[in-house]
Amino acid sequence: MKYRVFVTLKPGVLDPQGEAIRHALGSLGFEGINSVRQGKMIELDLAEEDAAQAREIAIAMCEKLLANTVIETYRVEPA
Amino acid sequence: MKYRVFVTLKPGVLDPQGEAIRHALGSLGFEGINSVRQGKMIELDLAEEDAAQAREIAIAMCEKLLANTVIETYRVEPA
Repeated sequence: MKYRVFVTLKPGVLDPQGEAIRHALGSLGFEGINSVRQGKMIELDLAEEDAAQAREIAIAMCEKLLANTVIETYRVEPA
Repeated sequence: MKYRVFVTLKPGVLDPQGEAIRHALGSLGFEGINSVRQGKMIELDLAEEDAAQAREIAIAMCEKLLANTVIETYRVEPA
């Protein structure tokens, strides 16, 4: 089973990387940008064939390694 | 309009970051991982209200800054 994990900063957490992108886009002449936030996408290809089981594994991976749950949230979706 | 941009390495391009995550998951006791690929997700909040127009802007941003189209592909989705 393939799963996609999206890890994003919680609202309110400062995102200097997103801010840097916003500035860079501004210097390139893009206007009207309210905000830019950057997150991570991780594509997992798991040997587990059972969808529910694979989802559980992906969530455990997020909790243990992929996301810092103090400042980040994650979403797991079948790919 | 809010758009989400997903930037991923093209198939065949080596992904050392994904490989590092796979190793780390292995050391944490996770088994049966065929592969891990890491990509970027960028959330754009644009002042442009017209959906088609905003999409064009997001695509232009990808071509000019957000993605390195030599080794990466991107996907633009309404958020």
